[in-house]
Amino acid sequence: MRQQGDPRTRSGAPSPSDCLPLLSRLSDTECGSDTNADPVKHEPTDPSRMRSLVIFYACYALCLGLGLACLACVCAWSGRWRGGFAWDGSELQFNWHPVLMVAGLVVVYGNGAVLYRVPLTWGHNKLPWKLLHAALMLSALVLSIVGLCAVFGFHNAKNIANLYSLHSWIGIAATALFAAQWAVGAAGFLLPCAPGSLRRLLKPVHAWMGAGILTLSIAACISGINEKLFFSLKGTANGTQPYSSLPPEALLGNSLGVLIVAFGLVVLKILSNRDWQRPDSRPEDASYTPLFQEETS
Amino acid sequence: MRQQGDPRTRSGAPSPSDCLPLLSRLSDTECGSDTNADPVKHEPTDPSRMRSLVIFYACYALCLGLGLACLACVCAWSGRWRGGFAWDGSELQFNWHPVLMVAGLVVVYGNGAVLYRVPLTWGHNKLPWKLLHAALMLSALVLSIVGLCAVFGFHNAKNIANLYSLHSWIGIAATALFAAQWAVGAAGFLLPCAPGSLRRLLKPVHAWMGAGILTLSIAACISGINEKLFFSLKGTANGTQPYSSLPPEALLGNSLGVLIVAFGLVVLKILSNRDWQRPDSRPEDASYTPLFQEETS
Repeated sequence: MRQQGDPRTRSGAPSPSDCLPLLSRLSDTECGSDTNADPVKHEPTDPSRMRSLVIFYACYALCLGLGLACLACVCAWSGRWRGGFAWDGSELQFNWHPVLMVAGLVVVYGNGAVLYRVPLTWGHNKLPWKLLHAALMLSALVLSIVGLCAVFGFHNAKNIANLYSLHSWIGIAATALFAAQWAVGAAGFLLPCAPGSLRRLLKPVHAWMGAGILTLSIAACISGINEKLFFSLKGTANGTQPYSSLPPEALLGNSLGVLIVAFGLVVLKILSNRDWQRPDSRPEDASYTPLFQEETS
Repeated sequence: MRQQGDPRTRSGAPSPSDCLPLLSRLSDTECGSDTNADPVKHEPTDPSRMRSLVIFYACYALCLGLGLACLACVCAWSGRWRGGFAWDGSELQFNWHPVLMVAGLVVVYGNGAVLYRVPLTWGHNKLPWKLLHAALMLSALVLSIVGLCAVFGFHNAKNIANLYSLHSWIGIAATALFAAQWAVGAAGFLLPCAPGSLRRLLKPVHAWMGAGILTLSIAACISGINEKLFFSLKGTANGTQPYSSLPPEALLGNSLGVLIVAFGLVVLKILSNRDWQRPDSRPEDASYTPLFQEETS
């Protein structure tokens, strides 16, 4: 069932603008801004529509590129500079922690969050994209939980206390909120028995909480990388150069932090641009249909 | 001169909805969602309008309360637990750094950012609020620059390297972007000679960059508090309990971090809610008038 609130979809069939909603949105905005305006404003504005589409795909390409760069940096740091990976309670087990947290809480999470913004996903049937969104987020959650298990196992093996630092508080809060967000989101948007009033209430909270969790993840990653570099690069008995002399490993770790922040800002930019929202997900559309109801009607 | 694009303001005089735009926005949304909908939808919806207003002021009160709590925590930490303040190159000079950065880059900045969302500021004359926004942001910038001077002076007096840690990279990037944002914002929105096309291009970038700078500030604060607690609470010669045993100072520092994150999330929530935007600042309004042009017309 299509959304009642969107005049473009009232016929029940997808209009051409559904497939190029970035373009239709710009057109709607211009037409709606002043009905007595100069007729020139109502002429096709293909160049500006195309510009918006190009800017979106440039941002999306940047998002993908920065995500891959984050993964490459964190794998190189743990795999090359910190000695590689194992699951034996040693430092090599700890090395899974930054890799899995950056992969889960940042890269896969961010890409899952912007999925609905990709115009190619805006066809009539939202179901496969809802399922892909849920699956990506579940993968991100599993990666981050395994990442937490890695550091807890390392701490326990070395008799190091858990969950005392501010980094750990922010990180565990991000993961716990993410788990709650996924469970509430799945119940509210995937189950056919969820009432429409609950979904309407839930949707803006889900979107805001999603951006908030990413902000927490970025803060947790920055504080974690900073802490790890101070712990590792002491310039004393372990033969490393001190962090303060900015050896190559420090530059790599700092660059990873900068890439994570840049990735997060690009994701938040994509999420915040109303012109890039899926047409039936915009705030002015008060109605909202659950996944299975949409699919079976 | 009022905005051409907003039918409510086309007469040049403020309509009643200008003073209660949260309410008018909800009404517009409902009426615009489906013109063939049940007539019940067109009846006055005072309860839902009032609810939106109440939720806004609850969020705003939370924003003010969390901001004050952040200031109280950071002042108590530096003033009581770290020995107080001085400007003599000692640790007491460093103590200004967290206080001034949290005050400038987080609390004053966040309150300056949400100023336009307060419905009481939505009268016909935007000039005093533009000037207050610019003044608050300039105060925030000055506070954070003095906060940077405090830590640079301390480092130089103790022969500690500057700007090597990821915390310092993120913090200096936040302050530099903030300075650029203020200068470009002042030139674009306060100077009468700035062309309208530039302002239209600048406005969404200004809003996104504003939220991005707050995200960077939060990440810088969390990593800085985390780092400082590890440096200070070593549980060795200096007679302190170790951070890992969570002594009262560690709880205070961690709580400060949690309060900063909560404050940031509330500010981002207020900024992201389209219903709470000033009516002549909404995205669908393509026109934008500069400060002095608005004032003199």
